[in-house]
Amino acid sequence: MSIKLLLTGGTIDKAYNESNGELHFVDTHIPEILQQGRNRSEIEIEQLMLKDSLEMTEADRHLIAAACSDSKQDKILITHGTDTIVATAKSLAALNIDKTIVLVGAMVPYVFKHSDAVFNIGVALGALQALQPSVYLAMNGKIFHWDNVVKNKQLGEFQEL
Amino acid sequence: MSIKLLLTGGTIDKAYNESNGELHFVDTHIPEILQQGRNRSEIEIEQLMLKDSLEMTEADRHLIAAACSDSKQDKILITHGTDTIVATAKSLAALNIDKTIVLVGAMVPYVFKHSDAVFNIGVALGALQALQPSVYLAMNGKIFHWDNVVKNKQLGEFQEL
Amino acid sequence: MSIKLLLTGGTIDKAYNESNGELHFVDTHIPEILQQGRNRSEIEIEQLMLKDSLEMTEADRHLIAAACSDSKQDKILITHGTDTIVATAKSLAALNIDKTIVLVGAMVPYVFKHSDAVFNIGVALGALQALQPSVYLAMNGKIFHWDNVVKNKQLGEFQEL
Amino acid sequence: MSIKLLLTGGTIDKAYNESNGELHFVDTHIPEILQQGRNRSEIEIEQLMLKDSLEMTEADRHLIAAACSDSKQDKILITHGTDTIVATAKSLAALNIDKTIVLVGAMVPYVFKHSDAVFNIGVALGALQALQPSVYLAMNGKIFHWDNVVKNKQLGEFQEL
Repeated sequence: MSIKLLLTGGTIDKAYNESNGELHFVDTHIPEILQQGRNRSEIEIEQLMLKDSLEMTEADRHLIAAACSDSKQDKILITHGTDTIVATAKSLAALNIDKTIVLVGAMVPYVFKHSDAVFNIGVALGALQALQPSVYLAMNGKIFHWDNVVKNKQLGEFQEL
Repeated sequence: MSIKLLLTGGTIDKAYNESNGELHFVDTHIPEILQQGRNRSEIEIEQLMLKDSLEMTEADRHLIAAACSDSKQDKILITHGTDTIVATAKSLAALNIDKTIVLVGAMVPYVFKHSDAVFNIGVALGALQALQPSVYLAMNGKIFHWDNVVKNKQLGEFQEL
Repeated sequence: MSIKLLLTGGTIDKAYNESNGELHFVDTHIPEILQQGRNRSEIEIEQLMLKDSLEMTEADRHLIAAACSDSKQDKILITHGTDTIVATAKSLAALNIDKTIVLVGAMVPYVFKHSDAVFNIGVALGALQALQPSVYLAMNGKIFHWDNVVKNKQLGEFQEL
Repeated sequence: MSIKLLLTGGTIDKAYNESNGELHFVDTHIPEILQQGRNRSEIEIEQLMLKDSLEMTEADRHLIAAACSDSKQDKILITHGTDTIVATAKSLAALNIDKTIVLVGAMVPYVFKHSDAVFNIGVALGALQALQPSVYLAMNGKIFHWDNVVKNKQLGEFQEL
């Protein structure tokens, strides 16, 4: 397998809870996205957690960092909630791992008709295979370097600093 | 605008013709795909033609080549039918243009529920922004160099030679 | 117009709130559903409210009842949240209005890929045009008389008593 | 089972043929539609054929008629191509079977994002359960009696005579 895909949850993987009408985590939809895209890249998926990124702890970030360090693959894709995705990117960059790491999320969960999830995963996967080692973020059809990106919460999109 | 997007048609942009139950070209769906992906990359779209790639002529390929040479942008995305996409990639590579050119298509038109179009456009757009100048093809979640790719018609997917 | 369509909200019309990741009401999706179904039945739409049915008050039910009584049409479709749809059906039946009234909702909002909304609106609209005057509920592909239906919350479906 | 569902094919059940880019029949999507609608009506499905209605022969119509006569259920839903659905409705009406028969189709196959299939099946199923014995056609959100309907090919919709 040439690519490692680490799942941590975030908006992209939220599902509808019929019993209370809220969104929650049940299972990941990423394999479904890859299948819809008829993906043939060799990807080894590892689910670290399924969490809202606002609830992500230091322990969670250590887990993600360890998974990046330990992976046999030097190309790593990470799904992540958008609220703290920049913070996690920074914490990974601080480790100076000699691998290409791309973090990606979605503004609208995959289960909605108007979700940006499939597009975003595509952008991230395409960029991952071509980028030099470092830590990046793929959102809004753009590739951001970890030290030059911020989430504009009012617009609901990511921007360069 | 930092990216040029040349539309030539292909399966990705075919639509349903209600009057005869066949597929035909009406208008492109690529702007809709970019909107669903909440794209904020600067992309200048130019529609060269909307053709089945089996009907593409030498004159059409000259038109595509000229558009690549003439574009102010050095990053060019081209939508193209999958049947002759490799041939067009080769003809563009022969020009030795010092730009990054990524060709992309789909096995199933965008208008179908199970289409690979949104994912493929994402992969191509992500790769385009990170790749060195040359000619590439983005399909099946992979980035192929123009001289190392073939369409396996039986499997309906692209493979390295 | 031969059919009156009263909108009251409910799960069927909930939308995704990107700023907090919760579901809320913005605007109705019912016209979109009718358009997708290429509907040509004459339907006059009146939006009474967009509410979660758990928050529906006696005053709201009086409003619905008044709209039913006042409508020029003798065929009335009502969208409603599923949690108290049976209670509203009963309150309308108590009025003995000589019109055909069909209440309908959804277990999953229209904006989700796996929503039952389009199917349910279809079932309700088809039944409405054929049923004798009284009050009915259309869910799960079935037509229930108002006095013979209950929501099984565990299964998330409606059943005869 | 209280409802018999006879499948004959038609636009509603056409699928995309990746090898030649045309539409063809592979398998029915009707069970998928009923599942999306969370249907709990007892429906016994019988697939008589999967044919474009322009290719339907007298022998095919005899097969449909026999299936209607022989069914234990007195409520029968028939999926059918729209080009000759009116002709089949007339041939069934001539049999004077004492059952409620509703024919239904779609202008756009279920596999397309903008298909009217789910809505139409809903309308037909709702009407079927409420109509008196006779032969009907459900399209465009309307219920037509077999002797008062024509397909307007220019508009792509069904109308009263």
